[in-house]
Amino acid sequence: MTLTIHPLTGIPEVGHGDDLAALLLEAIRGAGLALEVGDVLVVTHKVVSKAEGAVVPLEGPDEDAAYRKVVIGEAAEIVRRRGDLIIARTKHGFICANAGVDRSNAAPGTAILLPLDPDRSAHGLRMSLKAATGVDPVVVVSDTFGRPWRRGLVDVAIGISGMEAILDLRGTVDGVGRELHVTEIAVADEIAAAADLVMGKADRIPAALIRGLSVPAGEGRATDLVRPPEEELFR
Amino acid sequence: MTLTIHPLTGIPEVGHGDDLAALLLEAIRGAGLALEVGDVLVVTHKVVSKAEGAVVPLEGPDEDAAYRKVVIGEAAEIVRRRGDLIIARTKHGFICANAGVDRSNAAPGTAILLPLDPDRSAHGLRMSLKAATGVDPVVVVSDTFGRPWRRGLVDVAIGISGMEAILDLRGTVDGVGRELHVTEIAVADEIAAAADLVMGKADRIPAALIRGLSVPAGEGRATDLVRPPEEELFR
Repeated sequence: MTLTIHPLTGIPEVGHGDDLAALLLEAIRGAGLALEVGDVLVVTHKVVSKAEGAVVPLEGPDEDAAYRKVVIGEAAEIVRRRGDLIIARTKHGFICANAGVDRSNAAPGTAILLPLDPDRSAHGLRMSLKAATGVDPVVVVSDTFGRPWRRGLVDVAIGISGMEAILDLRGTVDGVGRELHVTEIAVADEIAAAADLVMGKADRIPAALIRGLSVPAGEGRATDLVRPPEEELFR
Repeated sequence: MTLTIHPLTGIPEVGHGDDLAALLLEAIRGAGLALEVGDVLVVTHKVVSKAEGAVVPLEGPDEDAAYRKVVIGEAAEIVRRRGDLIIARTKHGFICANAGVDRSNAAPGTAILLPLDPDRSAHGLRMSLKAATGVDPVVVVSDTFGRPWRRGLVDVAIGISGMEAILDLRGTVDGVGRELHVTEIAVADEIAAAADLVMGKADRIPAALIRGLSVPAGEGRATDLVRPPEEELFR
């Protein structure tokens, strides 16, 4: 089935307490669309964090030092450190640069944290969208992560609601009848990456609507994407 | 701009020497489409490898042992080994499970290697498509990779032609006027991930056409996505 990905433009600067679901629905209407059954709404965590008030001031004369202090406060564990770069495990379990604390697209003198519980944020957003429209969408909250071994950043899912994060194909057979043994597809991450193609970092497009996608049915969590430390070969 | 991703179905089993460009154009016609300027064609490496004859027999009574031998032959370096799992650096520089050697969707008693030079494969496919249609598309050859820290597999780009692999936003400013310092987006990987959403591992859909995407202009290579070992924190 053909998939379409619509950028949701025209969303104003989001502040603490704003009704993000209402802003998203306004943007969907602005794109000439209405929410439909099966739609997947991808939202960058920055607007979720801003709406939830997960923004902190960088206090003192040295803003960089204040930023590092926030990063360390958000980290459950420092995994690597080289120069200014800190790779940390967040309290959610995600391993990423600066424990997910970000200064780009933040108001001057502030930094944006990850939402306290991005799966819960996704669920709340989904419930608000459903209450407003009667349509129950899938919601994915995304962030931009680096990866070992490969240059460049990609968007990944840090919160989901209305789907399983991973499509488990183990036990199914391939096109030549061979059992697919180790094929678990991180569909939620692929959704986040796909949405980023229309969002653009500098363009302030914080959300996208994906239509025509059949997601793995279930009520999973993005933290299902976190590999348990005992299975991890690279720490 | 709205992006559409069309699965290209109906492609028959590909064999050594087959004209993959012709098969893709047939599938594009079958989807009711014609190649247009700006189109991005994503092709899983398996059909590229099969067309190029990058398939080896697994000889001897113990097929698993023969497979491991092929994997080790394809590896430039074994990065980790645990039980049957081998994480290796390929001769291209990619770090992935089993040096990219795959038995799923391979004929019984055979294994599929990565193309010798996937960027060159992408370029050849692009030139054939251009010669046949007059339209110069972007071509991405994809494979399915695991990642450290995150469960599940995602598709990434292992060969490209007609674009830069990475969108370099360093020096541009964000929505609040702050310079984006470390924002290099692995667009080619996001394209591969997006295409996988319509391909499906068990469905034998080996290609997708993406329309409406503005790719980073240039003539890059997927090997640009390989992080130089001296910059790597996780080996």
